Amino acid sequence: MGALPDVMQAVQLDAPGARVSVREVPVPKPGPGEVLVRMAASPINPSDLAFLMGAGPQKPFPAIPGIEGSGTVVAAGRGLLPRFLVGKRVACAAAPTSGGTWAEYMATPARRCVPLKRGVSLEQGAMLLVNPLTALAFFDIAKRGKHAAIVSTAAASALGRMIVRLGARHGVPIINIVRRQSHVELLHSMGAKYVLNTGDADFSAQLRTLAYQLNATLLLDALAGRQTAQLLRVAPAGSTVVVYGYLAREPSVIEATTFLYEEKELTGFYLPNWLAKKGLPQVLRDTSRVQQLAGTDLQTTVQRRVPLSAVQEALDLYQDNMTAGKVLLVANQSDVSNG
Amino acid sequence: MGALPDVMQAVQLDAPGARVSVREVPVPKPGPGEVLVRMAASPINPSDLAFLMGAGPQKPFPAIPGIEGSGTVVAAGRGLLPRFLVGKRVACAAAPTSGGTWAEYMATPARRCVPLKRGVSLEQGAMLLVNPLTALAFFDIAKRGKHAAIVSTAAASALGRMIVRLGARHGVPIINIVRRQSHVELLHSMGAKYVLNTGDADFSAQLRTLAYQLNATLLLDALAGRQTAQLLRVAPAGSTVVVYGYLAREPSVIEATTFLYEEKELTGFYLPNWLAKKGLPQVLRDTSRVQQLAGTDLQTTVQRRVPLSAVQEALDLYQDNMTAGKVLLVANQSDVSNG
Repeated sequence: MGALPDVMQAVQLDAPGARVSVREVPVPKPGPGEVLVRMAASPINPSDLAFLMGAGPQKPFPAIPGIEGSGTVVAAGRGLLPRFLVGKRVACAAAPTSGGTWAEYMATPARRCVPLKRGVSLEQGAMLLVNPLTALAFFDIAKRGKHAAIVSTAAASALGRMIVRLGARHGVPIINIVRRQSHVELLHSMGAKYVLNTGDADFSAQLRTLAYQLNATLLLDALAGRQTAQLLRVAPAGSTVVVYGYLAREPSVIEATTFLYEEKELTGFYLPNWLAKKGLPQVLRDTSRVQQLAGTDLQTTVQRRVPLSAVQEALDLYQDNMTAGKVLLVANQSDVSNG
Repeated sequence: MGALPDVMQAVQLDAPGARVSVREVPVPKPGPGEVLVRMAASPINPSDLAFLMGAGPQKPFPAIPGIEGSGTVVAAGRGLLPRFLVGKRVACAAAPTSGGTWAEYMATPARRCVPLKRGVSLEQGAMLLVNPLTALAFFDIAKRGKHAAIVSTAAASALGRMIVRLGARHGVPIINIVRRQSHVELLHSMGAKYVLNTGDADFSAQLRTLAYQLNATLLLDALAGRQTAQLLRVAPAGSTVVVYGYLAREPSVIEATTFLYEEKELTGFYLPNWLAKKGLPQVLRDTSRVQQLAGTDLQTTVQRRVPLSAVQEALDLYQDNMTAGKVLLVANQSDVSNG
């Protein structure tokens, strides 16, 4: 495995809303229960954008962003699980208060690492946690809440496409909402049956009618802002609107009368909370399932691979076209090339 | 019982938001399953104000307002239950689409009538359904949701006072929110331990601290509007804000980030929906319990008794001071006087 360097390249955020830079910082030391991962690749997720602009839980600054990625465990702190992982290829998530995945190395609790099965590449492994586990969680919520059908917004996103495929697999009708005609065609070409374009003049009426017909009482809101108010208005009585993203970056103006008399409910979904509530055995079952489906239902398209040093270009590229596929930050090209 | 008249005095609303008037209209005929109630008295409830201004489910216009009241059953349509009720003193609720209680007579389904026990007067019987059943429902919601404590807004209202007394009975801490210093004193004099005044400069901070201390994760919002956003902001993680009234008559401006990461939930409570879901046996148990507590925990203070013909004055009086006690519309003074 060779000796570890003392310093590494890492993306640094100095304050919420600031531009990121790449700097040389010390390689972290894994504490008790932790491992050190030599990072291969990390995606840019909408949750990363939220973190960069200061929404949600914050870390001490300057902070290394990045919530998920993949790599090889090269050192272990005290404990059985950390030692077991040494030398293994893993999908890994950052701890809430320490350095993230956008670096050459990351120290993180061993229980935030999932060993990759033989057929799963480091590239697919880098995107194995956030979107796939969120997609599985949504179908779990739909099942527990006895929702007959789902309204999915930002439906052309990586997560949106997973929802389309899982809906087909589970026989749950999905009403897909997109914002461009090209995405309507894209989703139809994937086999999606119901695709609505927010640009249509009668979009609201279309959504209301279809949601009533299919009894789509679970509405997944990736945007917040105006969209939340609209979904609450048109949803059938007894619906739950789940906000899981904040892409609109604006508040929602909501009339109590839109839900007071119709038992509608507005709530949020945040993956770390969800996983914390489920407990480790269920999470392990889910991550195992994710790896089985990594090549099919839960596959993610990569739009571009960018070296860590070009992180700002990568961010601009992703924000310009979030539905063309993920932008991957590559920390170690030879590891990624070798699998 | 004597012959029934052909016509009666009734309050009439011609359109949402219009002023009400009192007119002579035909006495309704009870259909199958219905009874005809000679009304004694009806309160003005916040839900009535909401109906008058056009919020929530509407009736065909011109409509007779009034959702609850008391009286004597003087005629029955087809059916066992209607015939059983003839001659009985009842608390009664209006059906969603037909005439309300603010009239000399009302035809309503027999199952919307509860025979009054001997010790319950027609005056207390007039206010036996809406507030008491709502108060019981809130404690039911608190128990099911395992909420350790409750935040109650508009706490000096008739409903607010019931919540204070039921909280003491069930050992559930209540954080009472009022908007005047005199109400702080009133609630303390009733034995309320926690009373906050929205007028205090540090009200938000006080509420946040106390809600965390007591783990008050059920917040009952009688106002909507700005208050909903404020409650969502300061509530502990995992809280549910239940909007049950619309007194603020303004929309809520909500930041998704206030609940997205903290699993807070916003929902509505509307008594008819709640009762419809519970089923008749549970509702009968609840109304029986309400009558037992009618003289104590679920007692309502009456501010003024006003004849039906002076309905507009009654509305003005109530809206000027909603916490001084209920304003009762008296349709039949001699029935009320005789109990």
